[in-house]
Amino acid sequence: MGNLVTELPPERLAALREKLEAEYADFRGRKLALNMARGKPSGTLLDHNMPVLETLDRPFAADGTDARNYGVLEGLPEMRRFFGEILDLDPERVIVGGNSSLNLMYDSFVRLMLFGTGGQPAWGTLPVRRFLCPSPGYDRHFAITQEFGFEMISVPMTSTGPDMDMVESLVAADAAIKGIWCVPLYSNPQGICYSDETVARLGGMRTAAPDFRIFWDNAYGVHHLYGETKLADIFAACEAGGHPDRPYYFFSTSKITFPGAGVAMMAASVSERGEILKRMSVQTIGSDKLNQLRTLRTLKDAPTLKKHMAELAEILRPKFEIVLNTLERELGGTGLAGWNAPRGGYFVALDTLDGCAKATLELAKNAGVTMTGAGATFPYRRDPRDRNIRIAPTYPGNDELRTAMELFCVCVKLAAVRKLCGA
Amino acid sequence: MGNLVTELPPERLAALREKLEAEYADFRGRKLALNMARGKPSGTLLDHNMPVLETLDRPFAADGTDARNYGVLEGLPEMRRFFGEILDLDPERVIVGGNSSLNLMYDSFVRLMLFGTGGQPAWGTLPVRRFLCPSPGYDRHFAITQEFGFEMISVPMTSTGPDMDMVESLVAADAAIKGIWCVPLYSNPQGICYSDETVARLGGMRTAAPDFRIFWDNAYGVHHLYGETKLADIFAACEAGGHPDRPYYFFSTSKITFPGAGVAMMAASVSERGEILKRMSVQTIGSDKLNQLRTLRTLKDAPTLKKHMAELAEILRPKFEIVLNTLERELGGTGLAGWNAPRGGYFVALDTLDGCAKATLELAKNAGVTMTGAGATFPYRRDPRDRNIRIAPTYPGNDELRTAMELFCVCVKLAAVRKLCGA
Repeated sequence: MGNLVTELPPERLAALREKLEAEYADFRGRKLALNMARGKPSGTLLDHNMPVLETLDRPFAADGTDARNYGVLEGLPEMRRFFGEILDLDPERVIVGGNSSLNLMYDSFVRLMLFGTGGQPAWGTLPVRRFLCPSPGYDRHFAITQEFGFEMISVPMTSTGPDMDMVESLVAADAAIKGIWCVPLYSNPQGICYSDETVARLGGMRTAAPDFRIFWDNAYGVHHLYGETKLADIFAACEAGGHPDRPYYFFSTSKITFPGAGVAMMAASVSERGEILKRMSVQTIGSDKLNQLRTLRTLKDAPTLKKHMAELAEILRPKFEIVLNTLERELGGTGLAGWNAPRGGYFVALDTLDGCAKATLELAKNAGVTMTGAGATFPYRRDPRDRNIRIAPTYPGNDELRTAMELFCVCVKLAAVRKLCGA
Repeated sequence: MGNLVTELPPERLAALREKLEAEYADFRGRKLALNMARGKPSGTLLDHNMPVLETLDRPFAADGTDARNYGVLEGLPEMRRFFGEILDLDPERVIVGGNSSLNLMYDSFVRLMLFGTGGQPAWGTLPVRRFLCPSPGYDRHFAITQEFGFEMISVPMTSTGPDMDMVESLVAADAAIKGIWCVPLYSNPQGICYSDETVARLGGMRTAAPDFRIFWDNAYGVHHLYGETKLADIFAACEAGGHPDRPYYFFSTSKITFPGAGVAMMAASVSERGEILKRMSVQTIGSDKLNQLRTLRTLKDAPTLKKHMAELAEILRPKFEIVLNTLERELGGTGLAGWNAPRGGYFVALDTLDGCAKATLELAKNAGVTMTGAGATFPYRRDPRDRNIRIAPTYPGNDELRTAMELFCVCVKLAAVRKLCGA
């Protein structure tokens, strides 16, 4: 369009509105039924990973351990080595979990709530507990902190990570602030990568709470779409800052192999890991080692994984390009929306005019396209400016996605123009 | 032997001791290295289950759900139906978990500790909390209640289940008693099956705590060695007693397919299950549905499972018979030990003379046979009479097991005779 819609004179705005209402009515007539609500991989992506399901005829680990039987709480040595290799982590920090890194995060909160850490009181016994929630962020993170009764403090995201001036001043002043949620690479939903400076400041900052924890959910740590983006080492940063126990690092193969049947892990300082394993030994005898072997037979090592992720990127990149090209073509220069162009991860985030996100998604839904709910990217599901929308392009087929994005852009414009018309 | 060793005159006792010391020395000279500490299935048993690991080329549930992707928190419908069919449970009560029923028990305690149930205060906020622990019992159960700060009350086992007179009078009088551990069929370690009357009384008893819960770990629910033993329906019993929310039912395929990679489940009243699923939705997006399909492709339905368990029983029965025949031959009529002859499950429990369990196991260990530690079958790992020993015959090969049992019987006798000699 090229012209700032926000500055159109009333009569041209009215004409535009009429045109958009007609376009929207046309889409409604098509009776679409598309769901883009969650960051799920498409069937094509999953089909690419089918070798993982081939017969596991040698169910033994390299050291001879029978992976069918009980035991090996911390995960098979080769699985820990693999995670160490691909994430540049000491395998001695790694604990292999089940199929869900979210579950490992939740369980980490449970331990902190019931038992505490580092000789500090259990978090559950505190009259007030607070948590920093860089926003927009991941709704399932915020659901955990809400479930455990944390007051969630929203911290704005910048192009290099959370607003670190704000983070530093908050954590220095308030001992009730017990931690921060971070998706440091290709953040959900904006695709922002934490800069080296951000990582260094997170590791070095003084916190009033001695048991402050960084929940470092590196969910998209190897999910590059356009070549590798490097992420600084959070353990090194925290050690340099004199806070070696501060980070809890999470990762999984959910979006490398299968979301429902991947292998999750967490990493922590060696001393913290020892405490965690001691607690875990009461909870379970061990995770599914056969699935560890099955996953390893396909992913093997860092070079094989890199190739595998490049193949997945071939399938994912066109989806992101459909989203970004459609946004640029339909909304570029209109002043009605801003968005990011991520270089990896699973999402694109878009900001509408203030007060238009809910209306936009309502329009889309009524025309048959369900997207992540408005507000979901903020604590308590409340977007203070009602403008942020998470676009999840990974699940639909490319043709469906193209249609959905065209409709979506009509909805963004229509909601905005209705608002500008004062309707 | 035929004569009560406990009644031998001193000179014959001394002679017997000399003979046993020599036999024991002979075993030590053989430098055995056998581990019978845990209830792990043998490699032969696991080999029998290898079809579970065949290629899963159709990763879709009956309703078309892509089992590779996210979702279906409560488990695939066919998996819930399968558990319902084999355990005579309404599938609407069932939640499918990951690979560990222990983990489901632990997580149930976590929810009760942090959130409570039925509008009652969270258990973690109570100044005192107590739990009934029928003993001898399962060490991992007791580890959970210990971890969460419960005062554990040991309740003696009878041949029909826990001493119900004692259970009823305790729970009626003390609102701090929040629940009871039960392994109702082929109990760990004694192989006792709860009678219909025991089940009815558990369901009907009045408890001072309105949120009293029965942790019904039916781990050996289909593990019959000599034909089926029926177990009364705990849900029906609790409903009849007016306490429909009382039971939490646990089960898994760990000892049906693979201990490390089975499928676990829990069942509860429909209303309780709804509460649990709501909490679980914050914890995880769902368990491994591919493993549910994989497991179902082999176990299929109740008749197929029955045949499968009969085949496993063919492998297990000789092991139990080695144990029982050796005990009878070496210890029968001596007055030095009592034991049970289970008709299913995974264990045999033996009682030595009072004060001889630790010494017996120490002797066995020093001769190269590691068994479950003394006291492990009691809360706090303290056996008040130091006499109960759990024998786990499922892991060793039959020849190894024969040797281990011969040594073990020498150790039982030697420890007893040393004690009788006042040494």
